[in-house]
Amino acid sequence: MVNGKPHIVIVGGGFGGIKIGQLFAKENVEITLIDRHNFHLFQPLLYQVSTAVLETGEVAYPIRSFFRNNNNVTLYMAKAQGIDQERDVVITNHGEIHYDYLILAAGATTNFFGMKSVEEHAFGMKTIQEAVHIRNHVIHEFERAEKPYRTPEDRKKRMTFVVVGGGPTGVEEAGAIAELIEIQKKEFHKLDFNDVSIKLIEATPRLLPMLPEELQKHTVKVLEKKGIEVMLNTQVVDYDGDVLTLKNGVKIPTTTVIWAAGVRAVDMMKNCGAECARDGRVWIEENLMVRGAVHKNVFAIGDCAAFMHGDMKRPLPTVAPVATQQAKVAHKNIMKLIKGETNPDKLDKFVYKDLGAMATIGKGEAVVGSPKMTGFMAWCAWMVVHLIRLAGFYTNMTVAFKWALNFLTSARLGRIITNISLDPMK
Amino acid sequence: MVNGKPHIVIVGGGFGGIKIGQLFAKENVEITLIDRHNFHLFQPLLYQVSTAVLETGEVAYPIRSFFRNNNNVTLYMAKAQGIDQERDVVITNHGEIHYDYLILAAGATTNFFGMKSVEEHAFGMKTIQEAVHIRNHVIHEFERAEKPYRTPEDRKKRMTFVVVGGGPTGVEEAGAIAELIEIQKKEFHKLDFNDVSIKLIEATPRLLPMLPEELQKHTVKVLEKKGIEVMLNTQVVDYDGDVLTLKNGVKIPTTTVIWAAGVRAVDMMKNCGAECARDGRVWIEENLMVRGAVHKNVFAIGDCAAFMHGDMKRPLPTVAPVATQQAKVAHKNIMKLIKGETNPDKLDKFVYKDLGAMATIGKGEAVVGSPKMTGFMAWCAWMVVHLIRLAGFYTNMTVAFKWALNFLTSARLGRIITNISLDPMK
Repeated sequence: MVNGKPHIVIVGGGFGGIKIGQLFAKENVEITLIDRHNFHLFQPLLYQVSTAVLETGEVAYPIRSFFRNNNNVTLYMAKAQGIDQERDVVITNHGEIHYDYLILAAGATTNFFGMKSVEEHAFGMKTIQEAVHIRNHVIHEFERAEKPYRTPEDRKKRMTFVVVGGGPTGVEEAGAIAELIEIQKKEFHKLDFNDVSIKLIEATPRLLPMLPEELQKHTVKVLEKKGIEVMLNTQVVDYDGDVLTLKNGVKIPTTTVIWAAGVRAVDMMKNCGAECARDGRVWIEENLMVRGAVHKNVFAIGDCAAFMHGDMKRPLPTVAPVATQQAKVAHKNIMKLIKGETNPDKLDKFVYKDLGAMATIGKGEAVVGSPKMTGFMAWCAWMVVHLIRLAGFYTNMTVAFKWALNFLTSARLGRIITNISLDPMK
Repeated sequence: MVNGKPHIVIVGGGFGGIKIGQLFAKENVEITLIDRHNFHLFQPLLYQVSTAVLETGEVAYPIRSFFRNNNNVTLYMAKAQGIDQERDVVITNHGEIHYDYLILAAGATTNFFGMKSVEEHAFGMKTIQEAVHIRNHVIHEFERAEKPYRTPEDRKKRMTFVVVGGGPTGVEEAGAIAELIEIQKKEFHKLDFNDVSIKLIEATPRLLPMLPEELQKHTVKVLEKKGIEVMLNTQVVDYDGDVLTLKNGVKIPTTTVIWAAGVRAVDMMKNCGAECARDGRVWIEENLMVRGAVHKNVFAIGDCAAFMHGDMKRPLPTVAPVATQQAKVAHKNIMKLIKGETNPDKLDKFVYKDLGAMATIGKGEAVVGSPKMTGFMAWCAWMVVHLIRLAGFYTNMTVAFKWALNFLTSARLGRIITNISLDPMK
């Protein structure tokens, strides 16, 4: 109890954490939200930061701004490292925090599936720092490639851009890189753009698995029209920073590998005293309580939680709608517990409502699952949905404005390199 | 000669370098512009990046975009380290570049006047990286100060923000920090904002020395109304990262010192085989040629050059209009040389036309030297002048849009911390 009120602690300021924070903010409780960042990241648009369409401040929104009018909400900027269920505390790098009820909404990180070499040399696509890093690197490679002392092999290697992973992030990233290169083309007068090659690698036989097959095929066609080589049924086994090695033995010389091939729960989930699935997600009950929670006061939602009931073959996917829908049920159930409910059967059971999927493939092109759409209309739908979900009126206005200008002028303001290495031969 | 045409090499993509590049782009010459960044930085608005009003991409414009339609211009991204006038080459960290005519427009860097401790611990305000660093740090200090384990002294030290230097940059930075803090106030529910203190320190008896005295006094009044302590006639002698020591013995505990107290030419100017002034600027003749240039083909303009004739008491100030006006004359004189002029007396002499100075002190407040203005009208004039000078239509639109939204809603999107240190006790 804090100030005589139940203390709700939320770990993570992603879609799930912010949503449940907003729900609890209206209750007579005290809330502490722990995040290692001071901002909520709108991950679906991160690829636009990595390709110089949007700026960092347009996809990251200060967590405190959500709770400006809620004196009962405190942000505790720290890295959560685990929990001690016996003592009801979250352990962070800035000390311990006691909770009455805990919601784990800690999210996911990149899954390199144990390939250390890939983890070391490829770019992840989960954090704002990674997105800026990709932007700096990709743009810098053009500057490096144009230097007169390059060998043709070196130049070609630097002009080969590989994206691994055929989900929405991989598809969107590959499409956006292709468009970025069209703009670069106009400004590098001495570079031979025949050297440019963009490859999208996917281990399974299909892109965008959550969409109907005809949309998958349409996506491949659009990507290929943009000059992207789509390599399905292709597995990566090694990457040393210079050469990407495939399972079939093929070697691709490249200095840029962007890894969007999978996620796993963040490391702290291992230290929550509960059983986790193979991808690190903690198993949760149908009422969203962590399986085997010692004091029946720990819940988990979103990407860090594995939810599966009766007839499901695999846990729910790691997407925003799962997190926000779970936030509502977890809030309701914790309020029941606060009000004295002791029978776990009386808690609400979570049922996922699948809203369908969508992905944009570039300017004026997207695929939407339901209702089935492609082309310009789908692209408009994609924009509207993302603008609605983006946090904050001011952000909405700015992003809408930038998209409009980008659409009309193809301008990408952000093509600047902000981390310069002075290493002479790099 | 490159492709049978004279090779013009420009060092630096600031105001002077871009301007002269644009003038030469229309001539029958080959141009190489050397810069360690791939962007032109609009320095007058850098303080808005450091205080989360604008994003990096809105004050930094890709150099290549200026020359999109000029096939005779190449950007060579490298750090120029010096020149060898005997061999007509610029030495860079990416090899040597031969020139027929050279324009040094390499700019200035922060002058710490030999105070190593200050250089190590204070923030400079000259690069985009420094501006982002200041933004991250200032916003992070609020997060750190709110942590419950802080002592009152520690908290106060973190809530003390010192800006050194009473020129436009210092005045604008102090004003913008005061406004940033007003926004933070609304979102840190548990922090006592009586602990906040902003100090503007200036060694001489006046702020904004280039403006009339009544405007200087007005500026002090406006700053004080914003809660900023203006300390004139005050000199800094030491700063260890925790305590700022003044010449009068006073010690100010603070974790934030922003140094806008002076500039000097960049280090490469020492290696140009020519005589430099005390602040590192190379002396130039009235025709803008570097004094004693061996082959009469090296010119210098802008912040890296010291220009003084007959009746002047000190060299021209390091401001953008000097650089752009000099660009025009240097271009003209080099074209004369290319066309065969051999008599140096036939070259044009540079005469500076002072367009007056201006500075903004915050939302709705600015001072303009000629015609003399203060308040809202001056602020509008300041915005118009800066928008006109900003590079690129798209940038203009975006910045105008952001300013309008900021004016209407006080929103500052960029209040995010992008470089997180996980050091537990920091």
